Amino acid sequence: MADKVLIYSRFPKSMMARFAERFELLDTGGKPAGEVFSADELGGVRAMLTAGGSPLGAEAMDLFPKLGAIVCYGTGYDGVDLKAAASRNIAVGHSPGANAASVADIAMTLMLATTRRILVADHYVRSGDWAASKPSPMMRPQAGMPGRRIGVYGMGEIGRKIAARCAAFESEVGYFSRSKYDLPYQYFPTLEALADWCSVLMVSVRAGAETQHVVNADILRRLGADGYLVNISRGSVIDERALVAALSDKTIAGAGLDVFETEPHAPGALTALPNVVFAPHIGGHTLESHVAMQACVLANLTAFFEGKPLPYAVKSA
Amino acid sequence: MADKVLIYSRFPKSMMARFAERFELLDTGGKPAGEVFSADELGGVRAMLTAGGSPLGAEAMDLFPKLGAIVCYGTGYDGVDLKAAASRNIAVGHSPGANAASVADIAMTLMLATTRRILVADHYVRSGDWAASKPSPMMRPQAGMPGRRIGVYGMGEIGRKIAARCAAFESEVGYFSRSKYDLPYQYFPTLEALADWCSVLMVSVRAGAETQHVVNADILRRLGADGYLVNISRGSVIDERALVAALSDKTIAGAGLDVFETEPHAPGALTALPNVVFAPHIGGHTLESHVAMQACVLANLTAFFEGKPLPYAVKSA
Repeated sequence: MADKVLIYSRFPKSMMARFAERFELLDTGGKPAGEVFSADELGGVRAMLTAGGSPLGAEAMDLFPKLGAIVCYGTGYDGVDLKAAASRNIAVGHSPGANAASVADIAMTLMLATTRRILVADHYVRSGDWAASKPSPMMRPQAGMPGRRIGVYGMGEIGRKIAARCAAFESEVGYFSRSKYDLPYQYFPTLEALADWCSVLMVSVRAGAETQHVVNADILRRLGADGYLVNISRGSVIDERALVAALSDKTIAGAGLDVFETEPHAPGALTALPNVVFAPHIGGHTLESHVAMQACVLANLTAFFEGKPLPYAVKSA
Repeated sequence: MADKVLIYSRFPKSMMARFAERFELLDTGGKPAGEVFSADELGGVRAMLTAGGSPLGAEAMDLFPKLGAIVCYGTGYDGVDLKAAASRNIAVGHSPGANAASVADIAMTLMLATTRRILVADHYVRSGDWAASKPSPMMRPQAGMPGRRIGVYGMGEIGRKIAARCAAFESEVGYFSRSKYDLPYQYFPTLEALADWCSVLMVSVRAGAETQHVVNADILRRLGADGYLVNISRGSVIDERALVAALSDKTIAGAGLDVFETEPHAPGALTALPNVVFAPHIGGHTLESHVAMQACVLANLTAFFEGKPLPYAVKSA
């Protein structure tokens, strides 16, 4: 009999196909597990698969008395209460680095699309305004990449890949993170100092309680009227109301956002703005990144059911 | 009395401001010079400023009996009949390399925007479809950059900058050009072989009679159903009708286009397609690139009026 794995978050069926070959999946479709399955069924669940951003606290864990492993699809695990898991002897796993290049690439895509105004450009051509020689103030020349100061907030695997890519664009790269690393980029000891210095702030920090709303009105003011914000980490890192205000009154020039405070909802006050490029949390969403993330999930689940430690365990768990 | 310079193409006034400080500008606004100025005025013209893509043949040159210098704003000079200029002792100048980074960056922007489907993504968020969990076949995972094969057609300054950027994205880079260079990228002896090999074809070749419609139906078929075409060179290099057909019947997956056969017109059959990202020839359109191009124009015009050779002369002229 196949081992059972509860699917805690809402995932497309196509993404679950590889797991269904090896395990019996109890798929909640993102609904509360208690509404979809009987207490009896939940009582037998020993492992679950979740999206790292889905809230998963002590109360939810206690619905599954035999739960021994929470496996996150992707690198993030900010929704999982790690203390609650540890105190219940539940191992927590994820897919470290598997999607780093894919996420770094969406950061670059959003930065370039925003600073070069590619949405406006595409519309200018499609609408016929270009052919009609209709002037467009939005199409005035903008600063380009050579010599541009890119500030990377968070120097994990994703941050490093963003930095390497920006350096190839002949930009200057600076960063702020808890630790200073042996890297060929200027280190800033505070996020404030980084925001004062840079014209694009790339948010690639690991999200958690200590980074909640760290990018606030003050940081955005320091980024300044020529500044752009790109967030591919988690919506929680940014004070979204302060961001809407800063974009509306031109405190900053624009933003590229793959993540939002309450996904899949992007507030209407935000989506009405012309100086933002949006993506529906597709940072890790490439074919090779899914293959790599799925390999981590399979390795974690297989090890767990064989009674071994998770090969891709969350380190701080 | 300031030296007179005829402005042959249509340029925004803001771009001409630096020149107006030094020269008396006779601005045609892109209209036929004979309609805007008297034969007497044209007879006094010794230098003109043009967009390299604007057709400028023997007949047009003969409107200006005293013409001694044609200065192109930007790197391209494909519209200028170089033989006709040479036989009339007219020097031809341009701005080599001044916009190379800016153009390479729009190539990267178009490639990323197209392959990661950023227009669809932005619309998916703004429309509320994401919040409503409405499935979108266009948002399925796509191949990313690591390991992707990027084919660069033309290894001038722009091609080299594109190649260096793509390498930072962990992609494989190959190229075809008339000459093989000492570069760390795979050389292909024909465009056909490059198109067979790559999944993104970046067109960065210098345009001219010998590259007219070189990217034709056969090349697009070789690029294949997973393939993308990015053109930041000139519209003339691509058979636009063959491209519309290839995009419509999914012979190739998509395209990113900054240039078109008959600018500023992009044919309706092209602009109706969802799998293309358009830009209105803004490759060289950044602040620092304009500053650099204007410096070349000023240096060329100043030297000419001082009776010296153009410092940025077109080499084959």
